[in-house]
Amino acid sequence: MKPHIYIPAPIDSNRGSIIVSCPERLGIVATVTQFLYEHGANILNSDQFSSDPHEGFFFLRIEFCMENFAKRIDHLRQQFMPIAIRFQMTWRMTHLMERKKLAIFVSKEDHVLRELLWRWNIKELKADIVMVVSNHPDMEPIVTPLGIPYYHVPVTKETREKMADIHLELLEKHRADTLILARYMQIIPGKIIERFPNQIINIHHSFLPAFIGGKPYHQAFARGVKLIGATAHYVTENLDEGPIIEQDVSRVNHRYQVEDLKRVGRDLERIVLARAVQWHINDQIIVHDNKTIVFR
Amino acid sequence: MKPHIYIPAPIDSNRGSIIVSCPERLGIVATVTQFLYEHGANILNSDQFSSDPHEGFFFLRIEFCMENFAKRIDHLRQQFMPIAIRFQMTWRMTHLMERKKLAIFVSKEDHVLRELLWRWNIKELKADIVMVVSNHPDMEPIVTPLGIPYYHVPVTKETREKMADIHLELLEKHRADTLILARYMQIIPGKIIERFPNQIINIHHSFLPAFIGGKPYHQAFARGVKLIGATAHYVTENLDEGPIIEQDVSRVNHRYQVEDLKRVGRDLERIVLARAVQWHINDQIIVHDNKTIVFR
Amino acid sequence: MKPHIYIPAPIDSNRGSIIVSCPERLGIVATVTQFLYEHGANILNSDQFSSDPHEGFFFLRIEFCMENFAKRIDHLRQQFMPIAIRFQMTWRMTHLMERKKLAIFVSKEDHVLRELLWRWNIKELKADIVMVVSNHPDMEPIVTPLGIPYYHVPVTKETREKMADIHLELLEKHRADTLILARYMQIIPGKIIERFPNQIINIHHSFLPAFIGGKPYHQAFARGVKLIGATAHYVTENLDEGPIIEQDVSRVNHRYQVEDLKRVGRDLERIVLARAVQWHINDQIIVHDNKTIVFR
Amino acid sequence: MKPHIYIPAPIDSNRGSIIVSCPERLGIVATVTQFLYEHGANILNSDQFSSDPHEGFFFLRIEFCMENFAKRIDHLRQQFMPIAIRFQMTWRMTHLMERKKLAIFVSKEDHVLRELLWRWNIKELKADIVMVVSNHPDMEPIVTPLGIPYYHVPVTKETREKMADIHLELLEKHRADTLILARYMQIIPGKIIERFPNQIINIHHSFLPAFIGGKPYHQAFARGVKLIGATAHYVTENLDEGPIIEQDVSRVNHRYQVEDLKRVGRDLERIVLARAVQWHINDQIIVHDNKTIVFR
Repeated sequence: MKPHIYIPAPIDSNRGSIIVSCPERLGIVATVTQFLYEHGANILNSDQFSSDPHEGFFFLRIEFCMENFAKRIDHLRQQFMPIAIRFQMTWRMTHLMERKKLAIFVSKEDHVLRELLWRWNIKELKADIVMVVSNHPDMEPIVTPLGIPYYHVPVTKETREKMADIHLELLEKHRADTLILARYMQIIPGKIIERFPNQIINIHHSFLPAFIGGKPYHQAFARGVKLIGATAHYVTENLDEGPIIEQDVSRVNHRYQVEDLKRVGRDLERIVLARAVQWHINDQIIVHDNKTIVFR
Repeated sequence: MKPHIYIPAPIDSNRGSIIVSCPERLGIVATVTQFLYEHGANILNSDQFSSDPHEGFFFLRIEFCMENFAKRIDHLRQQFMPIAIRFQMTWRMTHLMERKKLAIFVSKEDHVLRELLWRWNIKELKADIVMVVSNHPDMEPIVTPLGIPYYHVPVTKETREKMADIHLELLEKHRADTLILARYMQIIPGKIIERFPNQIINIHHSFLPAFIGGKPYHQAFARGVKLIGATAHYVTENLDEGPIIEQDVSRVNHRYQVEDLKRVGRDLERIVLARAVQWHINDQIIVHDNKTIVFR
Repeated sequence: MKPHIYIPAPIDSNRGSIIVSCPERLGIVATVTQFLYEHGANILNSDQFSSDPHEGFFFLRIEFCMENFAKRIDHLRQQFMPIAIRFQMTWRMTHLMERKKLAIFVSKEDHVLRELLWRWNIKELKADIVMVVSNHPDMEPIVTPLGIPYYHVPVTKETREKMADIHLELLEKHRADTLILARYMQIIPGKIIERFPNQIINIHHSFLPAFIGGKPYHQAFARGVKLIGATAHYVTENLDEGPIIEQDVSRVNHRYQVEDLKRVGRDLERIVLARAVQWHINDQIIVHDNKTIVFR
Repeated sequence: MKPHIYIPAPIDSNRGSIIVSCPERLGIVATVTQFLYEHGANILNSDQFSSDPHEGFFFLRIEFCMENFAKRIDHLRQQFMPIAIRFQMTWRMTHLMERKKLAIFVSKEDHVLRELLWRWNIKELKADIVMVVSNHPDMEPIVTPLGIPYYHVPVTKETREKMADIHLELLEKHRADTLILARYMQIIPGKIIERFPNQIINIHHSFLPAFIGGKPYHQAFARGVKLIGATAHYVTENLDEGPIIEQDVSRVNHRYQVEDLKRVGRDLERIVLARAVQWHINDQIIVHDNKTIVFR
């Protein structure tokens, strides 16, 4: 039994969200909601979190709709500035109609890619998939018929840094703002990570922090665990140690050979990554202190 | 969605909550948070729900702390009145230090009762258990040593109505505000239900609405289900049809005889009822339209 | 967390299974294993179940490998006959290389069909999909490119019986032995059910026996359940009352509108049906007394 | 796979089990079942596992009943010897009426101890609890009223080895055959581990191998995991690295402080350890190669 993604009502041009992080202080919610009210916004959804009510950090996410929001967003951002300064806020105001632009990185395994394409195709994933890039040509036939550009960029340990420049060029060309590593199986060079902070989502095929690194299903088999897991996380410089977005597990037993673990794991990877991507494109995640706050 | 019980920071005399239901309209959140801010309240937690953003009902729960709240609560309630009238609110303001007073009804099975007593004993359940009442004497030895009054009130189909008067007298004497049917197995007469609307919690040993009525484990066995469940719900006049608070399931298979289902079910019943009671005593539940909104 | 399908080692021409149901009696296992041993079979897997050790029914499934099994199976069946008679067995001996022949029935929803096709495509589903039939033309473009015949057979309440003849003709033509109703949404006439006893698998989008019949997600929404489910079962004359093969659930809450339940339900339906089909094609299921025994 | 504890029919003096591990070879099952048949045993349950069908290890567990088994067991063991030698078996034949004798080690936390005592009290745990030992006096009042001897043996890092002798003396005095570390929180010296190989069960409050060592809930909080776990395992010389018997997890989120993780964890620890102990006392576990085969 699993928790599931809650998707709010249809995104239209009048919907926006504001996300705020700041030191805990009296009056934050009142000030922000008053600001929204004065500008005629109707609050659709609001969630907040205090890391510690007395001296901690405060996080707030409000979803709202407002007449002519698309035209007014720049003005609103300006108007909000004094509040942001007063409360020392890190903040962003988002127009929810502006869809995220996803670049999917794959290798030879198709299951996670197919899952994302299917959810995108039936409009469950409300984002644009602007490109798929792979170090192998194999996935091309399931990508290009959908009208999505597919780039085959072979990568070796030696050419990794150089190829990163090609990746960056492609990402720029397609204006990608989110990278999905859909079982890409290659290390992402620092220059890409720096360029896309908290914008690269990886699916690791274990219950992190157990079985960091290569061949986690082999590791799980060797240890004799009774559950196997999958973890979606943002990519940071430290491999497999970035902020965890979502995890789930499946029960296995002594009868499961490595191939069986892989098979069961495929289903987990698909679902766990799909949830994480959904929350990311809905702008429901705040990263703080190498952890995620997921408002859902 | 937050599947487990979240217990907020220690309840002290400055903590309160306000819960509001009203027709959807612009400015509700702004007005309530502004009100709280003007009275010096610090918002600790806030959750809201719109049954339909355009024409539906709106539900809001805010937890806050305020200097001298205990002394100021009556004044605050008065001050809030005009807002409540303006927005046609059904509302309550609660002093979270005022612990709920639970009366537990049991029969001969001890598992759910023991679970509640244990959680109360280790102070996980922040409420007062003011009495335990049973149609059998069996549970007395595990209740009275804890300093909780135990009443043996035998009930038959014939004496049910009459015994309800005795029950009501005991409940009044101990000022109980919440009734927990911990596998009580007896029908609650209408006069008790009317006196305690949305204040009686029952644990039904099936995944409602499957297997309504008696012997649900026998029914589940006969149907050959692959999961069995338990359901905690508020008691209404219609048996097993009141608003559902919480449900959970456990996997079973063809090897499970009725006795096995009962055994597995015991663990479910304990956990599911404990969660529901926790949310109720934290004042996290709103009942609307025979459903529950659980803010957690 | 979910239990998962255990798939045994690669099926080759030397692998077989024997499945036996008979009244409980001394010596069944010893006799059958002795028989297999004398014919040079190596037992790979064995599972058994007694509905009641004293006077009940006994079920046995043994998987084995044997040199030249393909050539010897007819002879073996003859040799086994006296044992079967002695113990009053209902039994079958299966050559595991003989793949099941699946006919998939669909309507307009693609998710369950896609899931089955994907698992078949990556050879996780070791069966032949011999045809897809639908009362709508919509799914044709995802079926025919895979080389699978697609038949568009429009059905109305009035033409149901007549169309059943066309269905039966197609099933015969393609020698289908298993029918998968992948959200087909149409009632199957008795003449098809009689022709394929315990060979038609349906996915119902609720946790049966809750929400029998039409629009189960609407029913679940109206009742305010905290978990939604899906059920795979064999089809019998009584709609939604056939033997349950597999069930699973997902957690939801008050925020889930009907559309959200459908979305979450899609993931459940895909997984639950895939498991049931897997066990069916591995010949792991015995139906007895409107229940299933699934040996896994 | 059968995720919950399956308890067979009432244990009586005629019930036994035989557990066998040996190199894979033709005829093992046939020979053992034939042996049992010839001695008039009725097989109630049988399970087997091949680590690799071609060159691996084979494991077999058969539960049976036999007239006058209690009187005949020694003779049977002698008779079985030639078979054991022929197949190079490691084996044991158990009289299921001989209840295991459990010694429970606790510290200051009561939840796991209470769970075991309750299950023992309602006869779900069919074993004898022969003693409870603790490095603190706190749990005495909940143990001695049940008629179970309670020993307070203070242990420091310095006195650990010396105290182990006292522990061993007590264990011998009460003829304990199984040690349950119910949140004992102390390292078990090698001399005790050697004396009780695969007979000491520990509950570790994390999803091993994640968060090995001390304060796993603090570690889990720091890493920001979305699920927390508990693991029951046999104790070996390498702390937290012994064969895993059972694991389970619960969902948490950013709102869970360390205290919340502990609270949720308590429920997990209780259930996971209870399952492991149940399987151990039913003699359902084989340890091989630092992993467990759990026949259920």
